[in-house]
Amino acid sequence: MLGAKVFFKCENFQRMGAYKIRGAANAILQLTDAQRTKGVVTHSSGNFAQALSLSALNLGVAAHIVMPTTAPRIKKLGVKEYKGEIYECDPCLHAREAMAKKVVREKGAVFLHPSNNLDVILGQGTAAMELLEDQPDLNTIFCPVGGGGLIAGSALAAHYFGEDCKVLGGEPFEADDAYRSLKSGKIEKNTTTNTIADGLKTVLGDKIFPIIKKHVHSIVRVTEKEIISAMRLIWERMKIIVEPSSAVALAALIRNGQDHPKRHRNKKIGIIISGGNIDLDNLPF
Amino acid sequence: MLGAKVFFKCENFQRMGAYKIRGAANAILQLTDAQRTKGVVTHSSGNFAQALSLSALNLGVAAHIVMPTTAPRIKKLGVKEYKGEIYECDPCLHAREAMAKKVVREKGAVFLHPSNNLDVILGQGTAAMELLEDQPDLNTIFCPVGGGGLIAGSALAAHYFGEDCKVLGGEPFEADDAYRSLKSGKIEKNTTTNTIADGLKTVLGDKIFPIIKKHVHSIVRVTEKEIISAMRLIWERMKIIVEPSSAVALAALIRNGQDHPKRHRNKKIGIIISGGNIDLDNLPF
Repeated sequence: MLGAKVFFKCENFQRMGAYKIRGAANAILQLTDAQRTKGVVTHSSGNFAQALSLSALNLGVAAHIVMPTTAPRIKKLGVKEYKGEIYECDPCLHAREAMAKKVVREKGAVFLHPSNNLDVILGQGTAAMELLEDQPDLNTIFCPVGGGGLIAGSALAAHYFGEDCKVLGGEPFEADDAYRSLKSGKIEKNTTTNTIADGLKTVLGDKIFPIIKKHVHSIVRVTEKEIISAMRLIWERMKIIVEPSSAVALAALIRNGQDHPKRHRNKKIGIIISGGNIDLDNLPF
Repeated sequence: MLGAKVFFKCENFQRMGAYKIRGAANAILQLTDAQRTKGVVTHSSGNFAQALSLSALNLGVAAHIVMPTTAPRIKKLGVKEYKGEIYECDPCLHAREAMAKKVVREKGAVFLHPSNNLDVILGQGTAAMELLEDQPDLNTIFCPVGGGGLIAGSALAAHYFGEDCKVLGGEPFEADDAYRSLKSGKIEKNTTTNTIADGLKTVLGDKIFPIIKKHVHSIVRVTEKEIISAMRLIWERMKIIVEPSSAVALAALIRNGQDHPKRHRNKKIGIIISGGNIDLDNLPF
């Protein structure tokens, strides 16, 4: 379609269906033995809750997970399957943070933010690092941008391990906080989040934004139609299941290639497929 | 679920989305140079038409494809993409065979039946052969059963390359001709074909049935509900897209394991995922 060779890093094949296991595992591995005996705490309604529970289980560490009462039942079941202990709270950020602080105080456990934590960011970056180990001469890597941990880690990986490899982000027009943040130079909030890419509604953290400002080339915005069309292309041609947030990265490549027809011709492009967790009862086609 | 280790041979990742490229390629490779210059003919409304066109294109051979006027537009487009020449005919077996004979006569091309051809059968068997190369001590392989080419080839592969490896078939209750044929000892036709597993509606060929009688252990029938449930399990847990016919093999393993709870415990099982060609606008969930 674009005259480019495209290599996909399929994080949908991770055990819990998404790249987040990388950041969770790395953050726990950086703790001292004394810290590990006290366990870890996070607040998350989604994938990071499962990722931290599973990593903690693998490493013999207790995981305390603060989840809003409104979190999907299937996500709570996932956490329980991986032996994470759930603490329910009201569905607002203030209540989540207050409950997490309480658990830290009572258990002496270490708080790990789902994205705005340098060890988490470096862990997420290992996906791009591995992709560059396989294909050292990638010209560009496209990542979806939500909280920004994945693209910040990927940009660091490209900077340290790539050969002049650019990193571009894909973001829905409907949740374009990172695009606007790069334009204005400060962290902007989403004004709408009416997107099918439900993993990309979060805002950038203050540890993440400086990395993005320094190492990310640019962010390409895509429409909901482009996201669904890219998702369908991956499902039909590659026969793999990816969630809408992952399709945003391919949609961004396609749009960028259409806007600049020569840019990716005869080039090698990497795409981080972030995950494959999707509700089959609620598909866009 | 069953206490078994299960290994999947993912033919959904084949270039045209199904195992049929194996039989088509092998059949063309067995032709003499003189035969190849005249081209090949088949009649097929489905995957074999694309498989033969693509194999012929790869091997520099002309492909003449007889397709009923009712064949799905998407399948005709696939054949054209692979440079196959389409000959339309009325949608009945008699018209298909008559048209194929006419093309053989006019072009001097070699007729290759989509399943009832020994070279095609041996080609299909290479999927199980490769699976046994990776896992030589498989105790059992499960295959879906349609025209029977895949299971006949797999049973030969298990016989010649396995270490006491049984081959079992999976078949929908709604198209259980192979199950009844094994019971009666002669080729039976389907009385109904009201199944979601649209690749399994065909009957057994006379070159195939003797191989099945001799080398297939048994055939396990499954309900439509079991097929959809197995398909969903694969989509959700493995994050890959398989067509309903492929899910029949896993459904058969699950039912067989439930009927005989100790049979597969601590055993190594192979499953041939036959393909991933499915209409995303028409999913069962």
